[in-house]
Parts: sequence; structure tokens; C-alpha cells
Amino acid sequence: MVGLLSRDSGETLIDQIVRSVAARIDERLLRGGARMPSIRSFAATHGVSPFTVVASYDKLVAAGYLESRRGAGFFVRERLPMALNAAEPGITSAGAADAALATKPIDVVWLVRNMFRQMPHQQMPGTGVLPSDWLDGAAIANALRAVSRQNANLLLSYGVPQGFLPLRQQLQHKLAELEIAAAPEQILTTAGVTQALGLVAREFTRPGDTIFVDDPAWFLMFGSFAALGAKVIGIPRLGDGPDVARLAELAAIHKPRLYVINSVLHNPSSTSLSAAKAFQVLKLAEEHDFILVEDDIYCDLHPGSAVQPATRLAALDQLQRVIYLGGFSKTMAANLRVGFIATSPERAERLADRKMLSTLTTSDIGERVVYKVLSEGSYRKHADRVRARLDSVRAKTLRQMERVGLKIVHAAPAGMFVWADAGCDTNALAERAMAEHLLLAPGSLFSPAQLPSTFMRFNVAAMQEPAVWRFLERAVGAVK
Amino acid sequence: MVGLLSRDSGETLIDQIVRSVAARIDERLLRGGARMPSIRSFAATHGVSPFTVVASYDKLVAAGYLESRRGAGFFVRERLPMALNAAEPGITSAGAADAALATKPIDVVWLVRNMFRQMPHQQMPGTGVLPSDWLDGAAIANALRAVSRQNANLLLSYGVPQGFLPLRQQLQHKLAELEIAAAPEQILTTAGVTQALGLVAREFTRPGDTIFVDDPAWFLMFGSFAALGAKVIGIPRLGDGPDVARLAELAAIHKPRLYVINSVLHNPSSTSLSAAKAFQVLKLAEEHDFILVEDDIYCDLHPGSAVQPATRLAALDQLQRVIYLGGFSKTMAANLRVGFIATSPERAERLADRKMLSTLTTSDIGERVVYKVLSEGSYRKHADRVRARLDSVRAKTLRQMERVGLKIVHAAPAGMFVWADAGCDTNALAERAMAEHLLLAPGSLFSPAQLPSTFMRFNVAAMQEPAVWRFLERAVGAVK
Repeated sequence: MVGLLSRDSGETLIDQIVRSVAARIDERLLRGGARMPSIRSFAATHGVSPFTVVASYDKLVAAGYLESRRGAGFFVRERLPMALNAAEPGITSAGAADAALATKPIDVVWLVRNMFRQMPHQQMPGTGVLPSDWLDGAAIANALRAVSRQNANLLLSYGVPQGFLPLRQQLQHKLAELEIAAAPEQILTTAGVTQALGLVAREFTRPGDTIFVDDPAWFLMFGSFAALGAKVIGIPRLGDGPDVARLAELAAIHKPRLYVINSVLHNPSSTSLSAAKAFQVLKLAEEHDFILVEDDIYCDLHPGSAVQPATRLAALDQLQRVIYLGGFSKTMAANLRVGFIATSPERAERLADRKMLSTLTTSDIGERVVYKVLSEGSYRKHADRVRARLDSVRAKTLRQMERVGLKIVHAAPAGMFVWADAGCDTNALAERAMAEHLLLAPGSLFSPAQLPSTFMRFNVAAMQEPAVWRFLERAVGAVK
Repeated sequence: MVGLLSRDSGETLIDQIVRSVAARIDERLLRGGARMPSIRSFAATHGVSPFTVVASYDKLVAAGYLESRRGAGFFVRERLPMALNAAEPGITSAGAADAALATKPIDVVWLVRNMFRQMPHQQMPGTGVLPSDWLDGAAIANALRAVSRQNANLLLSYGVPQGFLPLRQQLQHKLAELEIAAAPEQILTTAGVTQALGLVAREFTRPGDTIFVDDPAWFLMFGSFAALGAKVIGIPRLGDGPDVARLAELAAIHKPRLYVINSVLHNPSSTSLSAAKAFQVLKLAEEHDFILVEDDIYCDLHPGSAVQPATRLAALDQLQRVIYLGGFSKTMAANLRVGFIATSPERAERLADRKMLSTLTTSDIGERVVYKVLSEGSYRKHADRVRARLDSVRAKTLRQMERVGLKIVHAAPAGMFVWADAGCDTNALAERAMAEHLLLAPGSLFSPAQLPSTFMRFNVAAMQEPAVWRFLERAVGAVK
């Protein structure tokens, strides 16, 4: 923690100590039962007063992180293992063995919780977000200050269930650039894409219904859908989109209600749908009468279809059968919790009612900040810079990955993720990494059935640390 | 709209026009098909330029509020009727006729949507919130400005699923004053009590399970629970708490999983649980093994148990069988969307995982604002002022209500609501009121079975307008 304390961060020293000790415990860098430095030694090491340390330790005890043992000092509390409830009726993948649902040492909740921590980004090659210093903190700060100077009375009463109107008007323009026509009344703000996916799934499925997802895909939604009682089935994802023959076959058998798909910059592979695949997927949706939920959260990491091909389902279908989801957690600021749904007017109205039952409204504050940032035009340049920076590290990172024995099947020319084959069980690899304080994202996480996999996801923006490469050099292929 | 436009509100004239026209359409003060004033006449009436009016009308067209008919001008668009989806398996009240579920002209969604609008507060004696000018806008503005000066980098990455730690520490103190011991790790922030209720219901019930609510009770949760497939059953609420004989009987029959109850300042009656009733309710929960969900959203409108009796279930049981919910939408600022859950450490962990699946995290911004306001101590004085102001209008309002023929069964000495018997069908009364641009809250809304009722809820803070009294004088008793 040396050097992490700052006297001008706007946070008290006590809060800084509490936060960084708590983060280290959450990251398991400090394990249950470990003894904390004495008050005096901590104070001396960090150049703070013993009173500051006492207050910090007390807060950490109150928050359940530490315990004080009389005469012996402060110790990290033993914590209970965390696991998601068993899915009901369960997540199954076409042809997957049920055995895969057995308890695993690494689970989705564990990974997601760790991603939420202020763990040093260089130690998280498995992270799903960009490092904070790649984002435009100054723009967010300016926008928030501008919002804070507005009439605060607007915050005293509830907003409208559809969300802050000027933002929805701004999103109309953004969507128009993607050739998607959506009036503000067709747009509904949400607390990130996460709430959007939950609202759509709750509105358009009943327990027992089937939801298709890509295989591999973003892991958090598997748990969210399973918790609604949906059957979650994975459609194998190839380099240019789903395996459509398999999609047709499985659609005939399972009659899904929804298919959630990343058309552009798929998580975890950063590949995009080809135009031909997009058309075939839409035809199958028509034929088997399911709704396509197009999750375009990585939109702004793509340079645009003028530069690289990108076909959005919603641009072809104009929000008839496609529900389009977007958000700003990846390229603007995750903590604003601003995402949105664009859909037909009739569905937008149903979803607004559903949102009302779920959170009444979302807070205008984050939505006003996003509106400011979007409407002032600096965001476009920021996104350009982020893409240029990703481009500048990608090629070198891919070469280094191949050098340490990671096989890259589809090297996508945009996005932050690389999906690579380590040639060995990546659960075991991730466990070894964890012991060395590195967070990896093993392939099993992205499998709807959580099947073991030799693949894993890497974030090219989080692989600058030599320790990461030393680990990979040593471990890839070595784990059986 | 005359006089509503302001050049120093921080909002552009166009936005002000758009917002107030949209609100009037949403309130049905401007009906579908109505012709809007011409550009020139609107501009002249409001002292703005025709360009401002054109831009405003265009925005209203884009937002779906108006339509432009070539040569004829602008008209209010006809809108589809709104209704909640039919509940499945449905809301039933012990012994209630199914016929009550038939479509009604006034439904929950209609009322809630209207409450979200910037309708003049004096026209909403049925509203569930305090007028904005009763709240401390300056404190919220100061807190938001302080937050906006903090390190914006903290907003770039996700917060923690449990919520902003210093706020949870502050809530620990607040709860301790209510004699409820809860460490920060037992507290989870939510997007208002609404998200809290949804998380609890999703975590602790399965489709087909029974949830008990008070009858009457807060209407929005009926729809939220029904959407989860729960059976919602009302327990008759008397002046000192639920009818415990009936509760025992219905618990034996229905084996509920949860009972959601306002112990202090019940909505809609503002009555509170007696100590004896609280004890009996806890014993029944024990005997029939259900969880008590104590919704204490009106907490800060109560002067404290030193002044008036107030027994909280969580204070008796110390969060073993009681899940305690609180929030700041009523007395601080609804738009911050900050509520919380306090429960056992084990349940808090499960609910944090559930929250993660639902919205990942909540935004720190609102939580930091609430933390600032709470920790700076001005909030306590503000709450005192709000209570004093309610006290100052309550007695006079009650007298006036009786004078116009409204019968008050339990005149509670605190809170903003009065539950009164109009001696006639209050759905019909509310429809008549609506025609005169007054929003009433008829008793059927608060009935878990939405049964017609002669009762209705009044907000003593929203009954200062002579028009309200003129209407009630004329209408109460006159409607058959």
C-alpha cells in the first residue's frame, strides 16, 4: 500500500486506508486469519499518525473485514465462501454434461466481485473494463460539476420512468448514425445494460421459457436468466457470427423466446457478425418467432462501418423484431450506471411499466452527466483516442501472446478482448494465477454450461505488466 | 403555462416548454386530438420568439407527444391506453371476488405515472410525496456540488455491489438510534425501496409462493410481486396494526414466504404498530416460518419513540427474521434513488449477489450525496422542520375534511397521509376529480385485490388549494 495514500485526492486518509485494505482482503491478497501490521508499524510505514490507523482499523472491524483479538492485535476475518445459488431449472448447453454444474473453486460471482474491486489494473489481464486512466475522467468531472450547478429542485421529485428526455433525444442521433431510426419515445434508460437485459427477460419470458445466448458469452447474464427460471442455451459462436445451422436446429427443438447476441465486438472474442450471418439470423428469428436482443455495449470501441465492416441487426430490421441495448459503462464511466433500450413504441411502453415496478425511475444525475458529455462533442474524440490506444497495443500483445504459447483463432482488428487457446485447462491456470495475485478469466466462465475450457479471455489494455508475461511464459502449457 | 417559463432556472426555454407541454399531455390536461395554439399565438402569449416555439414543437413531435398535420397545425397525439399486464397467477385477497380484476378506467400504472409528472402539487391531494418546496433543495445542491469536486476517477470504474461504504457506515448509526444493530456488511444500498422489495421478493420467493401485504397497502408492490408469479394476499390492517387473528388464520392456510409491512406510519393510514401487535406478529412469523419485510420508508416523518410510540420489528428481533428496508425518497430527494436493506450477514451476501445480477452496482453519486447530507447533520433539522410543518397543517386539514363529509377512522398524530371514508365509491369520485384536473388516490388502488372502496388516501401537505375543497364539498356524498 506504500505510496497509495494521497493528501489531495478528496478522500480522507482514513477512507483511503479503509478502502485499500478492504480491497486487498476482497482480492484475497490479504487472506482470512492473516495478522495486520501493528498500529505503530503501519503508521510508521505509511507516514500517518497512529490515530489515523486506529480509526481505520476500527472502521474495518465495523465493516467486518478485520477482527481485534485482545492482546494479539488485528487480524483479517475469515469469510464464508461465496457462490451463486444453484440455477433453476438450470443452465444447459446443447449436449453439455450436467456434471459441469458441480461446484467449482472459481465461479462467476467470485470473478465479478473481483472485477468490482480497486485491484491494480495491471494485475487483471482478465478484466472486462478499460483501465481508469484510459477514460476521460476530466470530461466526467466537468459534466458532473455542470449538473451540480443546475436547479437541484429537479432532483427532489421522481424523474420520468422513460428516463431523462434530452438524453433520449441525444441517443436518437447516436442511433441514427448507426442507421437505426428510434424516436425518443422508443428509448428507455436503464441502470446499465445489466438492468436492460433483466427487464427484457422479465417482460418477454415466463419461467421455463428458453433464452439463447452465444457460446461463449458474457457470464453475468447466465445467472440473471437462470434466476428468472429460464433455460439458457448456448449457440456456438464462430468467427463471423453464430453457427446458423446449429441455431436453426436448436430453434426448432427449443422454441426460444429470446436470443441475446453481441453483433459487433462480441464478448469475449471481439469478432463481429458478417452481413450474411446477420441476415440469416434475422430470417431464423422470423421463422421461429423469437426476439433478437442485440447487446451493443462495445459499440464505441468499433471504428465505424466505413472503416471496418459492422452490421447491426437493428439497422436491418429497424426495431421490429430486434431490441437494441447500449450503454456507457465501458467507454465513459461504469459508475454512472447508464444504459438504454431502443425498441418499438409498443414494447418501449411495456418496458417502461416494467422498469417502474423494478426501480420506479433511474436517477437523472447519471443521465444528465452522460447527456452533457455526449452533447458537448468531446466524447467522440475520446472514443477515437481509446481506439487508437487499443490499436497501438493490440498487435504487439498478440505477438507476445503467441510467443508464450497462446493460440489466437480469430485476431479481431478492434475491441479490447482476445479469446485465446492456452492448450490446457484454464480453470487450473486461473487458480495458479490467483495464487500469484493475477486475475485471469478462464473460458468456463463464458460457457453457458460453465464447461471446462482451454480458452480464456484477455484484455489487451491490461497486459502491460512484465509479471503477467512472466507468469504466462511459465504457466501456459505447463498446467495439465 | 403562463408564467411558468423562467430565464434563470438553468433550463433552456425550449426545454421548459417541452417539459411543461409533455407534462400536461401526460396529465391528460391536454387530451389526444386537441389542437395546439399556433406558433405565433404561443410565442405571443408566452413572450418567446417563434423560433423557440418551432423548436419546442419539433421536439414534442420527435418525442411522440404532438403530431403535425400539413396545413392544419400541431395536434396532441392520440395515445394508447396504458394498463399493467394481467397479473399471473394473480392478485387475490382473502375472500375477494375475481370480478375485481376486470379492467378499470383508473389503474395503478395510470396513477403512478401521473405522480411522476411535474403536475402542480396543489392539484394532487392523492400524491404520495411532499411538495418540492417542503424539501431541502439547497442541502442536496450543496452535497452534489461537494461530490462533483471529488476525484471523478472514482466514478470511472464500478462501485461495490454492497454500495458506498461510508454511507453504509452512516446508516449503521442511523439504525442504532432506532435500536437496530447492523454492521455495514449487513447493509446493502438499493435504487430506492422499490428495488429493495424486488430483490427481497426475487431472492426469497419462487413463482407460486404467497406474499402477505397489508390491506390497504402501497400499490406498486402488488404489480411487482404479481409479475414474479407470487400470490399476493392482503391482511386487514386495523388502527394498531394487522388483524392478528386473521393473520394467524391466513398464515396457516397459505404458508406465506414473506409478509411486507409498514410498522411505523403505514401507507395509506399513517398509523403505527402497537408494541403488543409487533410482538404478536413476530410470534406468528416464527410459528409459521415466514420472513417479515419491514418497510420503514416513512421513518423520518415520525418524531421518534420518545415523543410518540413506535415499535420497529427489527428492533425487537435484531434482523434475524426481519428484513428492514429504508430510503430517502420521501424526505430527502426522490431522484437520488437511494434506499437500503438491513438484514443478517448471510442474507445480505445473498442479496448483494442478487443485486449484482440485477443492476451490477448502484451508482455511487446518489449514495455520496445522501452520505454528505446525512453526515453533515443538517438533515436532522430538516426532518424536524418537515414534521413541524405537517403538524401545523394536519389538525386544520382534518377538521376541513370532516366538514366536507369525509370520515376519518384513525386520526394519526404524525405522517403525511390520512385515510378517509368518503361514503361513496371513490373510483367514481376520482374520475370526477380527474375531469377537473385534480388527482385523487381512490381506495381501490391500495387494495391488494383492487376492490372498489369508499375510502381514499389524502396527503395533508397537498390540500392547500381552495379548488380541492370546493371540489370535495360538492362531490363527497354526491357520487353514488
